[in-house]
Amino acid sequence: MNARYISINTELVQEADAKIHVSDLSIQRGFGIFDFLKTINGQPIFIENHFDRFYNSAKELGLTIGYDRESLLNAVKALMEKNNMPNSGIKFILTGGFSADGYTIGEPNLVITQSPFEYDTTAFDKGTTLVTYNHQRQLAVIKTIDYLQAIRLQPYIKQNNADDVLYHDNGMIRECPRANFFMVKDQRIISPKTAILKGITRSKVLDMTVADFSIVEEDFTLEDLAKADEAFITSSTKNVLPVLEIDGQKVGDGKPGKITRQLNEQFTALIQRG
Amino acid sequence: MNARYISINTELVQEADAKIHVSDLSIQRGFGIFDFLKTINGQPIFIENHFDRFYNSAKELGLTIGYDRESLLNAVKALMEKNNMPNSGIKFILTGGFSADGYTIGEPNLVITQSPFEYDTTAFDKGTTLVTYNHQRQLAVIKTIDYLQAIRLQPYIKQNNADDVLYHDNGMIRECPRANFFMVKDQRIISPKTAILKGITRSKVLDMTVADFSIVEEDFTLEDLAKADEAFITSSTKNVLPVLEIDGQKVGDGKPGKITRQLNEQFTALIQRG
Repeated sequence: MNARYISINTELVQEADAKIHVSDLSIQRGFGIFDFLKTINGQPIFIENHFDRFYNSAKELGLTIGYDRESLLNAVKALMEKNNMPNSGIKFILTGGFSADGYTIGEPNLVITQSPFEYDTTAFDKGTTLVTYNHQRQLAVIKTIDYLQAIRLQPYIKQNNADDVLYHDNGMIRECPRANFFMVKDQRIISPKTAILKGITRSKVLDMTVADFSIVEEDFTLEDLAKADEAFITSSTKNVLPVLEIDGQKVGDGKPGKITRQLNEQFTALIQRG
Repeated sequence: MNARYISINTELVQEADAKIHVSDLSIQRGFGIFDFLKTINGQPIFIENHFDRFYNSAKELGLTIGYDRESLLNAVKALMEKNNMPNSGIKFILTGGFSADGYTIGEPNLVITQSPFEYDTTAFDKGTTLVTYNHQRQLAVIKTIDYLQAIRLQPYIKQNNADDVLYHDNGMIRECPRANFFMVKDQRIISPKTAILKGITRSKVLDMTVADFSIVEEDFTLEDLAKADEAFITSSTKNVLPVLEIDGQKVGDGKPGKITRQLNEQFTALIQRG
């Protein structure tokens, strides 16, 4: 296998040499943003949407991306050409840069990595299980690198025999650390509206049409969720994934729901059109 | 001037070579802890307290420091000897380590840096000014590298002509990003108790004695604070520093308070004993 390449400030370097100085504000202060998209058969999926969000995250944190969209796209293309990895996940991180005093934003560093990624076609029928946790993500609408709570909760998730955690803020359902959440109830497909990261996959689902159902953004509670017919999560790697259990309780009949399946089929068709 | 050295996993490297791989969880997920102490005339101040907190932060985040206290102390000493910098700040960072999947904790990386630091003896009389902001730090009791909000707020602080920000959680006073807060009111010296990082300087002040005053941990509100006689912040670099203005309003008569001065003199005596 050939060594993989990583792009640092648009320079391609061998993976082993992809290092940054410890004075970078990501290491010093956890300060940075990122975005993530996948490629299918060499096609980046929804890259314009991811760029929109990436530039917006930078703006919200007071970071300047020293590259325009064309240069950024060229950097992604150069990396893809070098790595020759048609099905992949591409992550671009923008850090706070080297900071002389360890506190003031420097000149940001842009790191682009590519890893093999193949969607597991059996994932949908297996579904997933969640355990809830009371936590409101800080700066939730910005895609920052902050996953302190999510990584800290890994043992808690395991102890509860769940695959992932679903955050709620004192009972108001929010999101998973790396996926958005939906429930299906009373002919409505509902995703929380407030204090969440607005995912690209989520936005595509919100734009879909399902006969006899409305699709809405609306906040709801743990109690509302207990009476849901179906639930699912959305993300760039998970597509539309049924949630079969929450806190050890079955959602609906505990099997992937009909509406969830229909939305996943629509989403799969969408990304295969590219 | 000689080049400075940095310790990475207890190996001394030239500052310019102090780099870590981009797969480290600090860069990928903002995941890490740190601690900071100062040296005066080559003496590390309260190093045992800082070690206590550092090991505790690691435990709370599920990180393992691969070095016992003696090895850690030896690493600090080796760095101090190499840098020959008697008055300094020493920061030790423990990251989540290199993570194959960018999410699971790896083998942590320990980075120890030393920077020149001289306490400015005119700082006390100049005092400081704060602007308040509604924010509750996540995992506040753990000394994590998360300063997203603090760094994002730098322009807000400037716009408000303040030196730093004072966080409150819906009106309950908490702390500054890098310092604890106290007010003096009705013969009491009071520091917030809940959901804060318990600083080493703060703990030393809580242990002091001031005639006719009690020194207590107790939560209080913005409204309580508006009627304070004095206010001050505490940190390893700031010692006991008078707060002269909050949100553009004078605290007391807007000059460094008598009790604040007394506490700073006690603290200065304490650190000069070493």
